[in-house]
Amino acid sequence: MGGEALRVLLEHPSVEIAWATSRREEPIEAFHPNLYGCGIRTIHPDRIGACDVVFNALPGDPALEATPGLLDLGCRVIDLGSSFRLRDRETWERVYGRVHPCWPLAERAVYGIPELHAEAIAAAELIANPGCFSSAAILALAPLVREGLVDLRSIVVDGLSGTAGAGAALARPIHHPEIAGNLLPYNVVDHRHTYEMEQELGLLADGPVSVHFTPVYVPISRGILNLCHVFPERALDRSRLLELYRDFYADAPFTTVYDRPKQSGATWQYAPYPWVSSVAGTNHCLIGLDVDPRRNRVLVMAVLDSVGKGGAHAAVENMNLMFGLPRSLGLERRGLHP
Amino acid sequence: MGGEALRVLLEHPSVEIAWATSRREEPIEAFHPNLYGCGIRTIHPDRIGACDVVFNALPGDPALEATPGLLDLGCRVIDLGSSFRLRDRETWERVYGRVHPCWPLAERAVYGIPELHAEAIAAAELIANPGCFSSAAILALAPLVREGLVDLRSIVVDGLSGTAGAGAALARPIHHPEIAGNLLPYNVVDHRHTYEMEQELGLLADGPVSVHFTPVYVPISRGILNLCHVFPERALDRSRLLELYRDFYADAPFTTVYDRPKQSGATWQYAPYPWVSSVAGTNHCLIGLDVDPRRNRVLVMAVLDSVGKGGAHAAVENMNLMFGLPRSLGLERRGLHP
Amino acid sequence: MGGEALRVLLEHPSVEIAWATSRREEPIEAFHPNLYGCGIRTIHPDRIGACDVVFNALPGDPALEATPGLLDLGCRVIDLGSSFRLRDRETWERVYGRVHPCWPLAERAVYGIPELHAEAIAAAELIANPGCFSSAAILALAPLVREGLVDLRSIVVDGLSGTAGAGAALARPIHHPEIAGNLLPYNVVDHRHTYEMEQELGLLADGPVSVHFTPVYVPISRGILNLCHVFPERALDRSRLLELYRDFYADAPFTTVYDRPKQSGATWQYAPYPWVSSVAGTNHCLIGLDVDPRRNRVLVMAVLDSVGKGGAHAAVENMNLMFGLPRSLGLERRGLHP
Amino acid sequence: MGGEALRVLLEHPSVEIAWATSRREEPIEAFHPNLYGCGIRTIHPDRIGACDVVFNALPGDPALEATPGLLDLGCRVIDLGSSFRLRDRETWERVYGRVHPCWPLAERAVYGIPELHAEAIAAAELIANPGCFSSAAILALAPLVREGLVDLRSIVVDGLSGTAGAGAALARPIHHPEIAGNLLPYNVVDHRHTYEMEQELGLLADGPVSVHFTPVYVPISRGILNLCHVFPERALDRSRLLELYRDFYADAPFTTVYDRPKQSGATWQYAPYPWVSSVAGTNHCLIGLDVDPRRNRVLVMAVLDSVGKGGAHAAVENMNLMFGLPRSLGLERRGLHP
Repeated sequence: MGGEALRVLLEHPSVEIAWATSRREEPIEAFHPNLYGCGIRTIHPDRIGACDVVFNALPGDPALEATPGLLDLGCRVIDLGSSFRLRDRETWERVYGRVHPCWPLAERAVYGIPELHAEAIAAAELIANPGCFSSAAILALAPLVREGLVDLRSIVVDGLSGTAGAGAALARPIHHPEIAGNLLPYNVVDHRHTYEMEQELGLLADGPVSVHFTPVYVPISRGILNLCHVFPERALDRSRLLELYRDFYADAPFTTVYDRPKQSGATWQYAPYPWVSSVAGTNHCLIGLDVDPRRNRVLVMAVLDSVGKGGAHAAVENMNLMFGLPRSLGLERRGLHP
Repeated sequence: MGGEALRVLLEHPSVEIAWATSRREEPIEAFHPNLYGCGIRTIHPDRIGACDVVFNALPGDPALEATPGLLDLGCRVIDLGSSFRLRDRETWERVYGRVHPCWPLAERAVYGIPELHAEAIAAAELIANPGCFSSAAILALAPLVREGLVDLRSIVVDGLSGTAGAGAALARPIHHPEIAGNLLPYNVVDHRHTYEMEQELGLLADGPVSVHFTPVYVPISRGILNLCHVFPERALDRSRLLELYRDFYADAPFTTVYDRPKQSGATWQYAPYPWVSSVAGTNHCLIGLDVDPRRNRVLVMAVLDSVGKGGAHAAVENMNLMFGLPRSLGLERRGLHP
Repeated sequence: MGGEALRVLLEHPSVEIAWATSRREEPIEAFHPNLYGCGIRTIHPDRIGACDVVFNALPGDPALEATPGLLDLGCRVIDLGSSFRLRDRETWERVYGRVHPCWPLAERAVYGIPELHAEAIAAAELIANPGCFSSAAILALAPLVREGLVDLRSIVVDGLSGTAGAGAALARPIHHPEIAGNLLPYNVVDHRHTYEMEQELGLLADGPVSVHFTPVYVPISRGILNLCHVFPERALDRSRLLELYRDFYADAPFTTVYDRPKQSGATWQYAPYPWVSSVAGTNHCLIGLDVDPRRNRVLVMAVLDSVGKGGAHAAVENMNLMFGLPRSLGLERRGLHP
Repeated sequence: MGGEALRVLLEHPSVEIAWATSRREEPIEAFHPNLYGCGIRTIHPDRIGACDVVFNALPGDPALEATPGLLDLGCRVIDLGSSFRLRDRETWERVYGRVHPCWPLAERAVYGIPELHAEAIAAAELIANPGCFSSAAILALAPLVREGLVDLRSIVVDGLSGTAGAGAALARPIHHPEIAGNLLPYNVVDHRHTYEMEQELGLLADGPVSVHFTPVYVPISRGILNLCHVFPERALDRSRLLELYRDFYADAPFTTVYDRPKQSGATWQYAPYPWVSSVAGTNHCLIGLDVDPRRNRVLVMAVLDSVGKGGAHAAVENMNLMFGLPRSLGLERRGLHP
């Protein structure tokens, strides 16, 4: 996550990278061959000094411990971990299995989904950047939930994730021979990201929401696809729904309703729904949907890159908002094909 | 599907392969490099003669047209396509978009899931071998549905499939550059296999069942993972459920309840749920499950190979039953790791 | 190739895309989901009008036929195919198996490797953009060959290519199930690109050069790795060689000598040689090398993206040179990790 | 390697598995989900008792230390590591960087390539099972080298390996996100397996041989492809070469010359050379070749599975020879397609 933030910030026209931390003071390219020759200065974490904004990509505990000091130095902080994402202390402490050491900060933190909280983000000192699965699920479901169109107790979300979302630490299931040709469900019930989804969708619904969420690692590197199944109170029309989504995201530069056009050559049919490969390495989220009128189900599909729009790129979008820069600055890359 | 049947039959101790058909009378290894040097005789489809049993792996229409003649010749037929899978004519004709040319045969066909219909299979002249997603969903849900433990109107199944399941025909979405690093939902509502699932589960439930099924191609070659979400009428206990499943499949040699043992070294944790890579190239189906007591959801996961247990290997198991051979004969391979 | 050119040109600050051609006049996103919403105008090839420069990404024969007309319209042309890459007519006609219909154009065309022919490119009306394997081999070997340090008759090049290099046309070996978990050597001797390598290296050597080239498709999408084995006349020192390469490419913004630093934590060791994933989607070529003093062999490794530096991005670099723009404009993207 | 040996031995009709060792006495399926329910007894390495034959798949030092004791117990030993593969002590000690603790055993060990040493294997107490790259290179080159047809100083071998060949230990380059979409050359000069190749080919040539070997990890799990380039003393004819190879391997049940037939429908063309996917999980080695008469090069391609024919399956073939069993017993599996 930190490496991807550096890549984007290196190419951002209004940013100068002051330093990155490295406990062994190794050069950045020791970990990130794609940044070979980048010249970014690395310093030991103990020697951090003031700067405008810090992207905090440390793992759990060190991230938490570093944050108060950074704020005291006058830095604004974008936290890329899970330290400040939940508004309910009891839930946070149960889910993460520890006492929160600086809960008042969590209360001041803004959950960093620009589509929902742009104003609060602009004013925030501390951003809790959302989890990747959470971003995709919240963006996929927000319009339906806000309008109260679906059963809020039976939302089913299957999240298919590339392995880059698992982080840099070596782990048995992410060992290439284990996952090549394989599919790995994990933490299949009560996953931590569920609580972020329920929190943000609950705010939109103004009431409790249950999300039945199951993640699966699949053998791609970058990106996730969330399959979100919802059951409408009454029959919903596909084109009305598309309109609802287009309106909801009319001002959002990076969340796009993806719909195949009417013309129907065989060629076009090959991408009727959003492709995760189209958003890998970018800040884009694409949303597609379909309706089963026979069984009264709506399926909403959202794709984004877990370390892009679901991580470091969204963090840069938040930074743009915080510093009054154009919201899309430095983030306009399109994805590849193929 | 035909190629995989040939591979298994070549290694089957009680089978002699009389012929395979090829319109151009090309050798089998022209299409299947893994059968290089196999010496199987190919004949033009017009020159088919009598034999004990025919595995019919032709595509839709030719498969339908060939079947009456094969039965007239005195061959028993295992149909690997979708010609005879549904018991309701109106449904079949709507779903497959044509008039069924020999419906009386469909009424005599037996749906070839050995775990449910072993006796009828043994006596059948015509087997409708199940669809791969259908096999996995039916096996995953049968115990719960038969016991009436879950809401039969809100069963959600997400099916993740390797590309071998898409068949041998070239197609844009299965072009390697398109799907490497990508995930492709397709026919996301009202998929044809849904009707097989609803039919067989409906028989077990003795009443209507709704399955909300969505398939996704993922960049592996062999195997599928079905994620089946069900909502129990009242809270269900995980170990009781495992017991129910073990009892249900006590006599089934190829459907196994997969559960991680109590001991908890970090090592073991790496395969808490069934791995699709463990069943690729085999006739095994592994079933795992978990319960979210907080939100009252049960997740059942089933893995099998779409051209193995979900296709050609199950067909051979059906053949064993039809000819009074040991049910597991020639099918005992284990999968690979890694 | 055309799609990747459009992606890069869309993000290029000094370019306006006049039109793209489509025989069916379908929108660009019908073929390229990553360009969804791009708004590029498509026209029928018969209705092409004048513009500053045309990127010709048509397949072989139509590409050849279109070129004279484009030049007559006053367009400069960057040809992304193989129509104009060879300087020897007899060789071209034998290798491509046909009479060249407009050979005088081929004689005016400039072979578009900016590292070798920048001045001629700037003045050219017609650029023959190099083949991807050729670019990688020529860049990998140019310094050694120009200095006359190696046996020019026993250069062995194995080229490992992602499937995007095979083009958009569906083909059996690029069908996902066939190549996932597989490796596909093809045209293993006397491959067409060999002649480009021998031509350009021969110019540098001022004499004949033999390249023993073998390509293999591997199951990645983007990028190639060329393994170039050469046998020095006398023992060569690794650090001297690195110096030679650094000098040779001192002014080349996109060809970089990649060498691991001295410090030797285990971490760094993981990327001792150039990674093709670091250059996917970019205009970068990374070159690494090693020496076996015991057997007197030098191995030079070059990585680039077959549709990036080995294709459309190099074409844009050529365009920058042709129009007096900064050579790196619109091409400064770094690759991803992971 | 040990896990694959157990899989094959479980399905071998003349073998009873006495035990497997596990320092933590964990069940086998803790490490190998494909062996779920296998019931193999695990014992602590300290409690090993006598049995007919031990497959020693321990890593380097423990493997070496265990061997003398096993032989003293009266077990015959098939060593799957590199402890006993080289006949020259000085070379072994330099290459493996340590003093060999029991060199007299190495002198009694037989290098376990059944195609070359079947008689010695049958009589051996200690087998040094070959390295995977070595097996593929030796089998690919043996006929040419024995006949003295090629320049023995300029043999170039590029070895493309799936990640299963890297072993079970977690490592940064085999972390899925790092190698998905990537290609990783490693130990590119003077690789340890080079010495096995040079030793065995030297015996056939009755003189010194130089192999210029470079391995690359590619993102497949199982199998390797060796591209072997040799330069003949005088022009060689492709069909003569095929004949030479067919004769050389006439009695070898698992090494097969792969050649495409004359008939030339487009279909067949898709597998003109051996496919590594056809031999994954098997004991088969396929060899194909081609000749470039224009540049006087012969390319020999060999594919095998690094833990199959290049490892555990070859070990079982050796066991069959050692115990007078039919050489192919328990090893006749064909590979998959796709």
